[in-house]
Amino acid sequence: MTAYLPPLRDMEFVLRDLAGLDQVAALPGFEDATPELVGSVLEEAGRIAEEVLAPLNQPGDRQGAKLVDGKVRTADGWQAAIDTLIDGNWLGLPYAEQWGGMGLPGLVNVAVSEMWQSANMAFALCPMLTQGAVNAIDECGSPEQKAKFLPKLVTGQWAGTMNLTESGAGSDLGAIRTKAVKTGDHYLISGQKIFITYGDHELVENIIHLVLARTPDAPPGVKGISLFIVPKMLVNDDGSLGARNDVACVSLEHKMGIHASPTAVMSFGDKGGAVGYLVGEENRGLEYMFVMMNHARLNVGVQGLAIAERAYQQARAYARERVQGKAIGCAEKGGIIDHPDVRRMLMTMKSQVEAMRALAYVAAAALDQAHRHPDAAARAQAKLEAEFLNPIVKGWCTEVGNEVASLGVQVHGGMGYIEETGACQHLRDARITTIYEGTTAIQANDLVNRKILRDQGATARAELAKAAALAADLRAHGDATLAAIGSALSAAVTAAGQAVDWLVGIAPEDARQAAGAGVPLLRLLGTVLGGMQMARAAAVARRRLDAKEGDPAFWQTKLSTAWFYAESVLPQALGLLGGITGGSRAIMALDPDQL
Amino acid sequence: MTAYLPPLRDMEFVLRDLAGLDQVAALPGFEDATPELVGSVLEEAGRIAEEVLAPLNQPGDRQGAKLVDGKVRTADGWQAAIDTLIDGNWLGLPYAEQWGGMGLPGLVNVAVSEMWQSANMAFALCPMLTQGAVNAIDECGSPEQKAKFLPKLVTGQWAGTMNLTESGAGSDLGAIRTKAVKTGDHYLISGQKIFITYGDHELVENIIHLVLARTPDAPPGVKGISLFIVPKMLVNDDGSLGARNDVACVSLEHKMGIHASPTAVMSFGDKGGAVGYLVGEENRGLEYMFVMMNHARLNVGVQGLAIAERAYQQARAYARERVQGKAIGCAEKGGIIDHPDVRRMLMTMKSQVEAMRALAYVAAAALDQAHRHPDAAARAQAKLEAEFLNPIVKGWCTEVGNEVASLGVQVHGGMGYIEETGACQHLRDARITTIYEGTTAIQANDLVNRKILRDQGATARAELAKAAALAADLRAHGDATLAAIGSALSAAVTAAGQAVDWLVGIAPEDARQAAGAGVPLLRLLGTVLGGMQMARAAAVARRRLDAKEGDPAFWQTKLSTAWFYAESVLPQALGLLGGITGGSRAIMALDPDQL
Repeated sequence: MTAYLPPLRDMEFVLRDLAGLDQVAALPGFEDATPELVGSVLEEAGRIAEEVLAPLNQPGDRQGAKLVDGKVRTADGWQAAIDTLIDGNWLGLPYAEQWGGMGLPGLVNVAVSEMWQSANMAFALCPMLTQGAVNAIDECGSPEQKAKFLPKLVTGQWAGTMNLTESGAGSDLGAIRTKAVKTGDHYLISGQKIFITYGDHELVENIIHLVLARTPDAPPGVKGISLFIVPKMLVNDDGSLGARNDVACVSLEHKMGIHASPTAVMSFGDKGGAVGYLVGEENRGLEYMFVMMNHARLNVGVQGLAIAERAYQQARAYARERVQGKAIGCAEKGGIIDHPDVRRMLMTMKSQVEAMRALAYVAAAALDQAHRHPDAAARAQAKLEAEFLNPIVKGWCTEVGNEVASLGVQVHGGMGYIEETGACQHLRDARITTIYEGTTAIQANDLVNRKILRDQGATARAELAKAAALAADLRAHGDATLAAIGSALSAAVTAAGQAVDWLVGIAPEDARQAAGAGVPLLRLLGTVLGGMQMARAAAVARRRLDAKEGDPAFWQTKLSTAWFYAESVLPQALGLLGGITGGSRAIMALDPDQL
Repeated sequence: MTAYLPPLRDMEFVLRDLAGLDQVAALPGFEDATPELVGSVLEEAGRIAEEVLAPLNQPGDRQGAKLVDGKVRTADGWQAAIDTLIDGNWLGLPYAEQWGGMGLPGLVNVAVSEMWQSANMAFALCPMLTQGAVNAIDECGSPEQKAKFLPKLVTGQWAGTMNLTESGAGSDLGAIRTKAVKTGDHYLISGQKIFITYGDHELVENIIHLVLARTPDAPPGVKGISLFIVPKMLVNDDGSLGARNDVACVSLEHKMGIHASPTAVMSFGDKGGAVGYLVGEENRGLEYMFVMMNHARLNVGVQGLAIAERAYQQARAYARERVQGKAIGCAEKGGIIDHPDVRRMLMTMKSQVEAMRALAYVAAAALDQAHRHPDAAARAQAKLEAEFLNPIVKGWCTEVGNEVASLGVQVHGGMGYIEETGACQHLRDARITTIYEGTTAIQANDLVNRKILRDQGATARAELAKAAALAADLRAHGDATLAAIGSALSAAVTAAGQAVDWLVGIAPEDARQAAGAGVPLLRLLGTVLGGMQMARAAAVARRRLDAKEGDPAFWQTKLSTAWFYAESVLPQALGLLGGITGGSRAIMALDPDQL
């Protein structure tokens, strides 16, 4: 596995020129987010990712997490790595100074998180889950709960987990059976949860589990789910740790990838009931989960981007050094990077990585705006955009992340299949991202039902209208490359618009066709909106080149990369459109027993 | 991992109605291939695949092949499995009775091979490689070599390997450095070969290595490569085994998948030189390799199909039994198979599996015709078709095989990522198929340069003309489903024709654009030609339904599956066309150091 090089130049470009970091930093509470501070934060995070986390990635995969004598043993180096993040207060980056945080925008946190995930996804899940628990308590907990749990969670001294899934309740959370019985000021929780990421470990002194459970007389289905805080170690009123709670890790899963991330089966209440504290009100657990969903799903989308970036770097390094044959148009033997097909793969990887980064960061900025903008209408508008982009970023970036990781293997030829090379670890690790935190189909359901059909496609059409306007501008541009990008974007936006229109039209007639078209539609919208961001990037690059600002090589590279995306990736939109409008009719053509 | 169910019904349909088994059986030498015999051969092979090979697949993956004290230890059950194949003379199926074979068509061998590969790809590589060695010696060896080696190889009592790759010579075979020095009636071989599938093991008493090497005064590059037979155990003139040859397995690779298939680093001549026997003439080794290539690449294409079939069966079984949520349009909870997106995934898997099977078997039939047809013109015509289809079957079936295996994981949700489930083994196993026996880019090179540009696109256009004629017939059909299939095929064929025209036009101007477009063009042609086979299948199904012949449920299913392929898969052709004609310009837009 090659070293990880933090792509700071592109990250800073996307932050400033596409995601509007300046406007985000102008939001109330983000006064500290000066360009200088953000720059040094990213640089230092990059250093840690490169020097501390990345070197542990492959050894961690080989060693894996193990359950030994009831304790989860993480891979060598994990302890020092988490201590590094705690020492630097990295987990606290996006949280209020009141709780010990740094008070920086979520947008900056996403950029930092991208680097952790690129460097070592199996490790980075630990702080990611802790931040998820912070978000839950921060947004839905009582003042007492915040005071008790946030200071240690925000600083990373305690870890957090999300306990949703049960063996009979995955995508269908309404089927949850874990019980919560009220006893005085707390509840006694009993039941088994599966697929709990970092469900147990010894890296920190306490783990705060957020657990979905059902009270005895709760209504059936999703309307009867409540959310509980269940600490591994009970916490005394003075903040000191008390007795061990009735929570245990029963086993760890053997997975295709992220071997070093312990995926636990957790048992609550084997000795009578685990002490749990209700978050908010009974039966509103699913609602609270949805509050956090935008963050959690954005983070997993960023994992897709991150693993793609790492796979790209690995493939590029190999393609530069590996000599094999004389490439067409070359006078002598050189790196396989000179072969057109290798170049096509690398360009496909690079251009999609940059498109994913742009769209994910733009979505993160919209989330910050939705939380902090002083104007209610602007907040509402940003919320609409953030919620629309959320399932697209999660679904599209993880699907493309898998494809890019697979291309990374392919660039290596036979060496890609050998574990020592490291390319196939990225593919094995990436494969979980389209599954957890809601499969791509779950994202597509959210997109179709809550984000498109609920307003009859208005938000979707508004987003596409922005892309269409940009495309029209570019087509009229004197620069041939920009004009070509504009034409390609225009065709793709038209296809996306037709797909949205089709969806809005078909849904009342045939809900199954609408549902069946969700995943290709999500893919289509991701492809087109990613293309719009690349087109924006190209326009900026052209302006800077003309104004002789900055590094011309960077702008020229961005222009060419955007052109490749437009010519090579955007045409997929036409194929997807056909599959959506025609193919959806045929989805249910067979009975289950004919399959 | 679920059981493997041999898809005999579809295999027999494809053999008879699409690949023309009757015409193949009418070729000289295939007199024994009566419908009854072929039927019972397939049934018995299916039984062995299901009962003997498939149950070993997952345990073999866990155990893997190990090098212990210089000997390769294969997984438990491997010995009994190979003995079963030897006892049934299964390896001899397509070879002349003169050498102990059964004298059946290669077409039937491909169908049998599909079942071995579906059941246990890591195991099935062993007989596949042995058959590869038989093909080499049978087609290029001297009468003495045939007499000495074929009887034991054909029956499987000895195994065979292909030793091509070296650490500096993968896709670029011209860089081979292994030496062969003539000494009396033989050569002394020295050098190291890597990635040698089943390079060493104790399953049979001898292993016959076919080794590419270079004589001292050979011309540089591919024109100086010779092919040698290098037995692990020397063979005396009376056929008994002599001394151990100077060949050793140095190490085994740790791979992403096919763990139970030993991938060896082989060292020749550490003790002075391994005895090798020249095949044919010096410096014609590459040519001999190409003679076998059509078989070998077809076989790997069949692996792509086979692993897709297995992944599909696994996903279908899970989707039927797993209950999760109430699907749209359903009154109560049922299997996830009722969810439209799950159905979309299963239909995508099933329809592509059937398209791949049809195209691979048609290609196998063309190979039989090319070898055996009594009329020279018909032989030449069949050879053209077989050679045109060859890289497409290899490249397209393996790329789609990976995607289908990945969809299989996705259908399982979180369980798909857990190794015990078995779904992700298929993906790990599949991942090698786009790499070995020539990467997809190597197939695309072959397609573009040897199969399309050499005759200015004439063969490609002739194949597409057949598809266009079929599409026109179907469009005019009174059956609405057939008409829809015809329309979709027509649009896709037009796109494929435009891509071929573009290629023929651009190649003289810009060889790099032509080369860079190869992989998407291969994909486009595979998609369209697979669609043509599905359209043929639909037409047959409609005729049989109208004539009330056979099982109406099978025909109805085939019709709907072909319809899905036409509506959902064929539109990809439009996206691919855009990427080819536009995207190829942008491939080389960046310098290597800008990537």
